[in-house]
Amino acid sequence: MRTQVAIIGAGPAGMFLAHLLARDGIDAIVLERHDREYVEGRVRAGVLEQVTVDLLHGLGLADRLDEQGLVHGGTNLSLDGELFHIDMEGLTDGRTVTVYGQQEVMHDLFEAADERGVRIVWNAREVTIEGADGTAPTVRWREQTGDQYEVRCDFVVGCDGQHGVSRKSIPASVQREFERIYPFGWLGILAEVPPVEDELIYANHERGFALASMRSPTRSRYYIQCDIDEKLEDWSDERFWDELCLRLGPEVGARVVRGPSFEKSIAPLRSFVAEPMRWNRLFLAGDAAHIVPPTGAKGMNLAVSDVAILAEAFVEHYTENSDAGIDNYSSRALARVWKAVRFSWWFTSITHRYPDMDGFDRRMQMAELEYIRGSLPAQRTLAENYVGLPLE
Amino acid sequence: MRTQVAIIGAGPAGMFLAHLLARDGIDAIVLERHDREYVEGRVRAGVLEQVTVDLLHGLGLADRLDEQGLVHGGTNLSLDGELFHIDMEGLTDGRTVTVYGQQEVMHDLFEAADERGVRIVWNAREVTIEGADGTAPTVRWREQTGDQYEVRCDFVVGCDGQHGVSRKSIPASVQREFERIYPFGWLGILAEVPPVEDELIYANHERGFALASMRSPTRSRYYIQCDIDEKLEDWSDERFWDELCLRLGPEVGARVVRGPSFEKSIAPLRSFVAEPMRWNRLFLAGDAAHIVPPTGAKGMNLAVSDVAILAEAFVEHYTENSDAGIDNYSSRALARVWKAVRFSWWFTSITHRYPDMDGFDRRMQMAELEYIRGSLPAQRTLAENYVGLPLE
Repeated sequence: MRTQVAIIGAGPAGMFLAHLLARDGIDAIVLERHDREYVEGRVRAGVLEQVTVDLLHGLGLADRLDEQGLVHGGTNLSLDGELFHIDMEGLTDGRTVTVYGQQEVMHDLFEAADERGVRIVWNAREVTIEGADGTAPTVRWREQTGDQYEVRCDFVVGCDGQHGVSRKSIPASVQREFERIYPFGWLGILAEVPPVEDELIYANHERGFALASMRSPTRSRYYIQCDIDEKLEDWSDERFWDELCLRLGPEVGARVVRGPSFEKSIAPLRSFVAEPMRWNRLFLAGDAAHIVPPTGAKGMNLAVSDVAILAEAFVEHYTENSDAGIDNYSSRALARVWKAVRFSWWFTSITHRYPDMDGFDRRMQMAELEYIRGSLPAQRTLAENYVGLPLE
Repeated sequence: MRTQVAIIGAGPAGMFLAHLLARDGIDAIVLERHDREYVEGRVRAGVLEQVTVDLLHGLGLADRLDEQGLVHGGTNLSLDGELFHIDMEGLTDGRTVTVYGQQEVMHDLFEAADERGVRIVWNAREVTIEGADGTAPTVRWREQTGDQYEVRCDFVVGCDGQHGVSRKSIPASVQREFERIYPFGWLGILAEVPPVEDELIYANHERGFALASMRSPTRSRYYIQCDIDEKLEDWSDERFWDELCLRLGPEVGARVVRGPSFEKSIAPLRSFVAEPMRWNRLFLAGDAAHIVPPTGAKGMNLAVSDVAILAEAFVEHYTENSDAGIDNYSSRALARVWKAVRFSWWFTSITHRYPDMDGFDRRMQMAELEYIRGSLPAQRTLAENYVGLPLE
């Protein structure tokens, strides 16, 4: 088998890239370790930046998004129960974010795959990458039948997440990794109840962070900061709702509609970046290269902007006979990645309770939130990062 | 003796307050531990916010400031030797800072004292405050002759710095203190050489922070971050200039004009806030209530804005028979103080090398500086804090 671009992983990065390449007539194949049901079932991100929404429109894959997505022109911050609003749309010349679950995005990308000639191999296990430092890399895998297959290609793109084979295929001597482990996790639930506010609430409370989010007008997504070693079984729905309402404060807490959770999980928080994002003919995109804490919802959006930059580079290579884009991919993508990593780290740092915080640290958080509340420039910096920095 | 307001300390806070009260016909007396020569000789701050400049104009004490002060419409940041400019004036609708040494400010305030009826007692030692929780406080002191004096007053204002008697006269049970000790100091020199740039340069370099500042077109003030236990005698002028030039980078470093230093000192960096800033009839202002690291030059400016707020409150008390201003002084002053404390802390944190920094922390600094370089809203937040937030 032979293709131009072999893509490892059918998550957001891999599937966006496959569609972008298909649109421009570049041949590609996507190798996915799991089956479609598994990938589509993963509960992940839910807030799309303007850049991501624009890209879905550009691909003509935004019908359901336009119908079901909730466009948010603003967001809320809360300090010890007192709410204030950030008018993102007004502060960024009309840019917004759209609430639309990653599961829905994946559904739309998968549904359109066949008719657009996007080839996906499901259940492709034991993937190996060979010859990425030569001119003709080979990717091999084993299918459920036990048979081994291989594809020769011009380029390999690793969209296979933190633990995939792609990043590990780059020699350690040419990679540098940066990491921050946060000393807390997020305990999150999904419940079939109307959200407490039309827009999100990021709450800094003495007892810890809370986030009021949603998936639809009838489905709420709530999170509370928890200890890293917290156990799910210690958190009944009732205990969760009580703690959430405390942290949202009396006014907002009293308006929360409670109901049984149908998903409940604890996620650790971590920042991670691997540099560079390219090694010869092997490229990394999305979680394979970087992880951000969920604060500010940058994870999936970064995956999408990575592959938007990369798709441009491949188009330049195949249609304009220029490798400038390919040569610049890592530095161009990383420039944007680091800014989003910084934003997520900062937004986490001003909203969460850290175990080693002293009175001064707490006052710095409060002063920062008070400053944001009173300063249009400060609100504008928050807003421009939240809706997503432009794709430069 | 009897007065309306007894002011302890003839530094910037005390002397600005004395002039503001004198202008509005409120009787005051300033008690200063040292003599004029000593106070005027102290090498301290050198960058005045717009609010401070406006206040000097309002007092009619800006003739020398207008003649000799260097108005700066911008400032520079430097990351590993690469300079970029922040157009403060353009970003803040025309606000600026003015380089004019604290020594010059003190000179102007002292020179005008006599003719404006500002009474200063020099060499007032062993100051005590009594009855501040009653209706008629008494302040006692001993003069050089050995004789003890006292003044009965309506209010006492402690402008006597971190180690003065005023803050210590407030019962510990009603005060809360917040502190941050930074794990480094500033080694600074004054030299009779033209400054390397017309405007300041705040430099973040792998080897540590550096600041290129000035007092006049022929007098430079340079600083480099140093270890907290660094010894002055280990720093010859030559070693200082070499290290400074390294940190400013090859382009700027090559333009530095060297010369013998005539002042050289190491200062520790510290953030400190005491709450509240009022206890009954005793008020704190300036360093007596708060300390900031010198990054961003907020120290003297905060002292001035404190007493601007307090003077208004006293005028309301004496001429409008309202204690609203007095009752709001602490919360109004602290709201501004905390924002400046936050700004100084933040500006320190993005420009200095911390002993426990890892690769991720360093990248966060670089990402923040890169973000500022590329974002007008981010530059605007820096600029509005640097020129001074409005006096609300």
